[in-house]
Amino acid sequence: MLEAIDTPALLLDAEKLERNCARMRERVRGKGAMLRPHVKTAKCIEVTRIAMGAPSGPITVSTLREADEFFEMGFSDILYAVGMVPAKVERVAELERRGAKVSVIVDSVDAARGLMEASAKAGVRIPTLVEIDSDGHRAGIKPGAATLFEVAEVLGSTLAGVMTHAGDSYNCDGPAGIREVAERERDATVRSAKALRAKGHACPIVSVGSTPTATFADSFSGVTEVRTGVYMFQDLVMAGLGVCAIGDIAISVLASVIGHQRDKNWILTDAGWMALSRDRGTQKQKVDQGYGLVCDANGRPIDDLIVIDANQEHGIVARRDGGVIDFAKYPIGALLRVLPNHACATAAQHSEYRVLRGGKLVDRWERFGGW
Amino acid sequence: MLEAIDTPALLLDAEKLERNCARMRERVRGKGAMLRPHVKTAKCIEVTRIAMGAPSGPITVSTLREADEFFEMGFSDILYAVGMVPAKVERVAELERRGAKVSVIVDSVDAARGLMEASAKAGVRIPTLVEIDSDGHRAGIKPGAATLFEVAEVLGSTLAGVMTHAGDSYNCDGPAGIREVAERERDATVRSAKALRAKGHACPIVSVGSTPTATFADSFSGVTEVRTGVYMFQDLVMAGLGVCAIGDIAISVLASVIGHQRDKNWILTDAGWMALSRDRGTQKQKVDQGYGLVCDANGRPIDDLIVIDANQEHGIVARRDGGVIDFAKYPIGALLRVLPNHACATAAQHSEYRVLRGGKLVDRWERFGGW
Repeated sequence: MLEAIDTPALLLDAEKLERNCARMRERVRGKGAMLRPHVKTAKCIEVTRIAMGAPSGPITVSTLREADEFFEMGFSDILYAVGMVPAKVERVAELERRGAKVSVIVDSVDAARGLMEASAKAGVRIPTLVEIDSDGHRAGIKPGAATLFEVAEVLGSTLAGVMTHAGDSYNCDGPAGIREVAERERDATVRSAKALRAKGHACPIVSVGSTPTATFADSFSGVTEVRTGVYMFQDLVMAGLGVCAIGDIAISVLASVIGHQRDKNWILTDAGWMALSRDRGTQKQKVDQGYGLVCDANGRPIDDLIVIDANQEHGIVARRDGGVIDFAKYPIGALLRVLPNHACATAAQHSEYRVLRGGKLVDRWERFGGW
Repeated sequence: MLEAIDTPALLLDAEKLERNCARMRERVRGKGAMLRPHVKTAKCIEVTRIAMGAPSGPITVSTLREADEFFEMGFSDILYAVGMVPAKVERVAELERRGAKVSVIVDSVDAARGLMEASAKAGVRIPTLVEIDSDGHRAGIKPGAATLFEVAEVLGSTLAGVMTHAGDSYNCDGPAGIREVAERERDATVRSAKALRAKGHACPIVSVGSTPTATFADSFSGVTEVRTGVYMFQDLVMAGLGVCAIGDIAISVLASVIGHQRDKNWILTDAGWMALSRDRGTQKQKVDQGYGLVCDANGRPIDDLIVIDANQEHGIVARRDGGVIDFAKYPIGALLRVLPNHACATAAQHSEYRVLRGGKLVDRWERFGGW
């Protein structure tokens, strides 16, 4: 049945997706916070509705293109979670005029000033969260820094809250380390919000998130919303962190065997980095999965095969231990499935999901890219 | 003027493109071979016509989607240069019925048999090249191996020639090493063709190619055609090999400064790996360019800045030496341009080229993806 698909192609197991989504929804709600799914992983309306368990709801976006696309489909409560610049204000203003409620983020006085000036010119008031740096990983203001209050002063009544992303959780060893990062993430934002409130700012929103911390946080006390996206699909990096099992990974790349290099014990496939992405996220983990873990056509890992190297349209598959391959099991044209290191990166190489249910191909869901 | 572009975006300098294309065309024709440009880098009709110096001509493709798209635009002489499998024969047959001349490649008796059986069923005769392994890099039959003749026997009169891709040229130290690889590439295919002819096979086509070997080969004696794609745009990997100068690189990613981490001497931009790709092709070269070399808005490298790390929609820019950054030069919203490690990978993250001529934005050219 998968034989009808031109390879390479991106497969999505709808049942695994539903299970992953239900689990996260229950976890976050059970701990008293609101889930604001990040749509940057899937960039797909159908997937996001499954994540919501509803036709629409609050979302996080990484591009204004995502904001445009999702607003068209009825999602009006949108957080654009990448540092805002003045040149992007008009596009947000246009969404606001059409009825969207788009929030943005800044992490400096300069960015806040630029935003306020451009907003005044565009005649809009854009609710703004201040980004907090909870782990030194990327952007944000360090908890306790005076800059926080200076930014809040500039924002005035457009200050809507604080947010952080604990990207460092991806570098942890396992659940214990992730729990610590999650507590730092919670503590940094909750303390910052309290400090702002003590100075008379309302600061209603306290927003945190990453798939590892959302999965293992002991508490969301003081947190109002959790942003997370990878959990919908899961991937090998998440499995390496203990966030999910290999069997939870909902997407895979369908590939055809196109050649054998018998002296090297290599199988060549037509899924190169164009289909898998160049992401090597498991390289620093305990188990390096190369460019992906190889499964049979039913999605079960097979013979400890991984994609050891990738060219544009060629994947080189070998046993992890370099051992002998029984090539008779993998004739020319045989189908394999490759589990991705990083769901966001691999999915981004494709324009649609071929949806499986009970192992049968049941649908095609579009995804979009661009900015 | 670039201020009108939503960042991140892919810029293409038309004059650099034209110079790169003219240079390669003259080089290959000057050495008596035919240029069969590889369209996998650009995936764009306008770029390919500039490469041809003509409205159409012989092309190399890495996907059947490229074959479909280019055939629609008048390119009918197409080599699909990834190992053929039986399931793809019907799609090639459909192109043949519509008037295309599509050639394919195989490198084993099994692949040749599968191709012949599927072709017979589809009622087509697909000209087929045998892939030769000139450098142990990926696919192909080793020069001198008996398999070559077995495959030729299976193919019979559909055997159209031999081909190789010297992918190992990407791992050379510089021009001297590349010349050696180029000569091995030429020798392996020319010898294989002669051996086949000695056994009574016609074997008219001898096809070689890679941007490094096409640039430095001393001779194409016995070679009938050269396939190469990256040269149109060039990139940092090519510059690292000595194939081009930094100033020849025709594409760059336009980015906005979105934040400053002053204590770390980091500039944050909105061009993360989604805009740059995850390619780290210069990592093994003498000069590691991180995720890309940073230029000012006019495309001139500036302050020895590189993209030291990339998240999905965040680029982290720092001085190569880790030194102090003059942040006043890079205010929030300032525009930067990032030169790519690998043109094929970076361009693939975008759906269009914003075309510059004389530093002015003059056009938008679409590119496509998928299979």
